[in-house]
Amino acid sequence: MKLGRVVGTVVSTIKSSGLNSYKLLLVSPLDLAAGNISSENGEVFVAIDLAGAGEDEIVLVSSGGAARVSAGTSDVPTDAAIVAVVDNVQIGERNAYSKG
Amino acid sequence: MKLGRVVGTVVSTIKSSGLNSYKLLLVSPLDLAAGNISSENGEVFVAIDLAGAGEDEIVLVSSGGAARVSAGTSDVPTDAAIVAVVDNVQIGERNAYSKG
Amino acid sequence: MKLGRVVGTVVSTIKSSGLNSYKLLLVSPLDLAAGNISSENGEVFVAIDLAGAGEDEIVLVSSGGAARVSAGTSDVPTDAAIVAVVDNVQIGERNAYSKG
Amino acid sequence: MKLGRVVGTVVSTIKSSGLNSYKLLLVSPLDLAAGNISSENGEVFVAIDLAGAGEDEIVLVSSGGAARVSAGTSDVPTDAAIVAVVDNVQIGERNAYSKG
Amino acid sequence: MKLGRVVGTVVSTIKSSGLNSYKLLLVSPLDLAAGNISSENGEVFVAIDLAGAGEDEIVLVSSGGAARVSAGTSDVPTDAAIVAVVDNVQIGERNAYSKG
Repeated sequence: MKLGRVVGTVVSTIKSSGLNSYKLLLVSPLDLAAGNISSENGEVFVAIDLAGAGEDEIVLVSSGGAARVSAGTSDVPTDAAIVAVVDNVQIGERNAYSKG
Repeated sequence: MKLGRVVGTVVSTIKSSGLNSYKLLLVSPLDLAAGNISSENGEVFVAIDLAGAGEDEIVLVSSGGAARVSAGTSDVPTDAAIVAVVDNVQIGERNAYSKG
Repeated sequence: MKLGRVVGTVVSTIKSSGLNSYKLLLVSPLDLAAGNISSENGEVFVAIDLAGAGEDEIVLVSSGGAARVSAGTSDVPTDAAIVAVVDNVQIGERNAYSKG
Repeated sequence: MKLGRVVGTVVSTIKSSGLNSYKLLLVSPLDLAAGNISSENGEVFVAIDLAGAGEDEIVLVSSGGAARVSAGTSDVPTDAAIVAVVDNVQIGERNAYSKG
Repeated sequence: MKLGRVVGTVVSTIKSSGLNSYKLLLVSPLDLAAGNISSENGEVFVAIDLAGAGEDEIVLVSSGGAARVSAGTSDVPTDAAIVAVVDNVQIGERNAYSKG
């Protein structure tokens, strides 16, 4: 799973019906730099929200078939789903991130 | 799902029969730069169109098995499908993109 | 699907039996540069040929499970298949590529 | 499968129920440099732990559907799982890595 | 499928039982440079061996679900398998690689 930050929302009227009941969030991938969670140059992507994630929160995103497992149905045409809101990232004895 | 812009069409006579009923669109991946949707250096790719997307429109593309979910049949030999036309991308209070 | 150019063939005696009836072609990924199809720095890869593609032709390649869909059997241990020979790539009013 | 080093743990209260019984570990991908296992610039990612891996250990990570195979159930919404703790990496006659 | 060179072996005592009967080989991805097979900067990875590949041999590696197809069972928690030993790579009239 990828660590990402929710940076926005995407609205679409014309879409596959299987996406209808999901919120589409824009996610920016994160990385570690000098032991801290930091922005990364990776491309933003769009995921359905299965965890009630809010803007600026750090989340876990599952890709591929796993995104449909978490939706609880294989009929959702997505390849990415937010499956968790991250509370804490611990690196050794040190707290690299805590949800504010 | 990836954000992409439809940049062209691909025509092929000799192809897997499972592709016969689909329009093949050339899509260029997009990213955020300074909070705006912008072109990206990523490689263009080809997706079947399931949303009636037009040239220059910004779309959502599902990859892998999700592309076949959206086609409503697992017999389409594609790994990418346009599953939505994007109306709006909202970043915080700001509108990063609106369909013209 | 990826746009690629067929650049060679791969021969193997010792291989998974599921690959026996397929031609193995070496494919170099393509991209757009200044609106034209052009070579790309991406890594070459090997795909089974399902479209009777010839050397130097531009093809569409499906990856992952889609490669096995196009083979019409899920028993082929490949993650890439040539599913179409490209005749034409149209970008707006302009012809970016036509098969010679 | 990827070689990675366990660098931390991720804690989440709000998550897909399918993740409930798994430890979520932060993994940094590894590469070979001059014949030795070394850190790599790749993005850290999060995997469920199926091998009882400890901090700083070198592990094998399976991605995609394979992560769910190793969990022994297809109901875990993850795309990455630690499937082995590495004891030894041998390159020719030389030992490139031994678990301490 | 990727072209790769077998560069080493990985030994693990604590691992998913589904990996028990397979040799784990370390593979370095290859590319073409100036028409010849050459090393590439890509990250090494670990694959199960289904072709009896030896050190330094050039092999074909299938990724994702294809790796489990070649194993002949969907119970192997791997995302990469060596499915062929390469004898020959032909580029046009020229032999780019022949197994010694």
